[in-house]
Amino acid sequence: MGTDNAPAEDVRGAVEALSDGRRGAGQFELILIGDQAAIERELAKHQGVDRSRISVVHASDVIAMDDEPAQAVRSKRESSLVRGVMLHKDGAADAFVSAGNTGAVMAASTFILGRLPGISRPTIASQFPAANGFTIVADVGANVDTKPKNLYEFAVMTSVYAEEIFGYRNPTVGLLNVGEEEGKGEERAVQAYELLKGSRLNFVGNVEGRDILKGTVRVVICDGFTGNIILKFAESVPGLLRSKLGGYAETGLLAKLRLGLAKGALKSVFREMDYQEYGGVPLLGVNGVSIIGHGGSSAKAVKNMIFKAEEMVRKEVNSRIGEALSGA
Amino acid sequence: MGTDNAPAEDVRGAVEALSDGRRGAGQFELILIGDQAAIERELAKHQGVDRSRISVVHASDVIAMDDEPAQAVRSKRESSLVRGVMLHKDGAADAFVSAGNTGAVMAASTFILGRLPGISRPTIASQFPAANGFTIVADVGANVDTKPKNLYEFAVMTSVYAEEIFGYRNPTVGLLNVGEEEGKGEERAVQAYELLKGSRLNFVGNVEGRDILKGTVRVVICDGFTGNIILKFAESVPGLLRSKLGGYAETGLLAKLRLGLAKGALKSVFREMDYQEYGGVPLLGVNGVSIIGHGGSSAKAVKNMIFKAEEMVRKEVNSRIGEALSGA
Repeated sequence: MGTDNAPAEDVRGAVEALSDGRRGAGQFELILIGDQAAIERELAKHQGVDRSRISVVHASDVIAMDDEPAQAVRSKRESSLVRGVMLHKDGAADAFVSAGNTGAVMAASTFILGRLPGISRPTIASQFPAANGFTIVADVGANVDTKPKNLYEFAVMTSVYAEEIFGYRNPTVGLLNVGEEEGKGEERAVQAYELLKGSRLNFVGNVEGRDILKGTVRVVICDGFTGNIILKFAESVPGLLRSKLGGYAETGLLAKLRLGLAKGALKSVFREMDYQEYGGVPLLGVNGVSIIGHGGSSAKAVKNMIFKAEEMVRKEVNSRIGEALSGA
Repeated sequence: MGTDNAPAEDVRGAVEALSDGRRGAGQFELILIGDQAAIERELAKHQGVDRSRISVVHASDVIAMDDEPAQAVRSKRESSLVRGVMLHKDGAADAFVSAGNTGAVMAASTFILGRLPGISRPTIASQFPAANGFTIVADVGANVDTKPKNLYEFAVMTSVYAEEIFGYRNPTVGLLNVGEEEGKGEERAVQAYELLKGSRLNFVGNVEGRDILKGTVRVVICDGFTGNIILKFAESVPGLLRSKLGGYAETGLLAKLRLGLAKGALKSVFREMDYQEYGGVPLLGVNGVSIIGHGGSSAKAVKNMIFKAEEMVRKEVNSRIGEALSGA
């Protein structure tokens, strides 16, 4: 019931995930949680659905996008969101995926699943396009008041995520700061620098705002306030360019042609920044697999979220995080 | 002696500023400070320089880009940078302009000129392109550990700057945060919200990372850590797009043509983000006019920095800030 067009997009995404023979993806079954009648109506619209791999669990309530997250999780026990996380907690599901209220997914996952041993705060890591692949940035908004110790934990979790899911061996880690020299920046950053320097991570030191897109390092660590603002800033870049290019388009046929070509070329660049393509992001650090998607997710994004969840389970990312924390 | 190609670019920029009959700009004279022989050699390369409007003051030392700012300002009293700020302090100049070591320009300006009454911390405001003009963001790096009170002062100064220099009447002000609702974000933001809400400013509430380029408000206020990272992130966007577009260009002649056209169209968008075009940024809140430029400034950027300084003086921005603070 999570997307803005729920349950239609969510169901279509699930059906497409089942029929998509993605290379490397294991076998999986899906449980759809929400208004049973509405979900069945949507399922009936699709041909050849393998019902042996898809089941429906009824939930009578829904957490809305504008519900206050922690309160909604406490009071709406019959919501699809809380029911879904409970199914995962109870072992009936190996992972949970939702494009619903982000704060509520975080709150429910953290409260119900609990945290991994050694992790004080879960984090959200998001990918940014870089000249040489992707830069993985965390935290992009799971936390507000971040402590130096949290930054160290984010770095451990995101390094494992970058290695297991993106295939970057022993990924380089940078601490986002206002200058490269040790001792730069606010007190939190100075203290986090020391923790990272003394760790087993491939820590290369401070990096600056420009290093994210340059791809100077594979993993960039920052507090959730800064990270959230950068993520939303980055997401608004394509819109500005489209609007500016549109503005110039009034000057004649040739200019229009030129702009059409420019937009076509840009589209392939922006695709790498598009959450519809890469699906959701995992909430790293909870004792389970919880994938968070945009409310605006299309069926394609839902499908990609499901594959992300399957990959997180198959590659045992949480076990790898545990090993990295204990230095195994 | 500030630019990477000093004094050649600096002198060329000064000469071009004198001969540029910019609309609305007042009459001004220039004092070039630095290695006298080197400056005279550069001046001699230009034709028809009006020497009644340009003079040279010798300074035997230079603060380098990698000098530790505060220490360099204290120990290098004969540097062009310190001499220049002293000339302004003593009234021999109405403004100071430098493309040298940014930290040293800030330190020298703050220590030597002092702060405006009612201002505890100076700020740097920078412009970002938006769909409907520019968004002015402060602080973009003058401060590291920012207090709520500082954020309020940044908002007052940047509102005046946006009104006087950009012509935005009673500009809307937003507080950069991770959500729009009051009470969102870290403690600093929550407290700053209250100060701004109770002020005479045209405060509209919290804004998010995406609102900078959308142009939701004219003035966006944030701590110097976050602002500096966003500024540098934004400056790296054109580089990423060029690199991505370049990567696609290996697929044939037609594709190359298409990409050339795309780059041409993008160029006019990126021009609005280019410091070479708008010159430097003022250090708002010091008792004087101090314009800070990139080390990579071309003659054109130097020229535009001079015009920015002239405009700041002519429009008496500091008097307007004083009035805004006192509620006059």
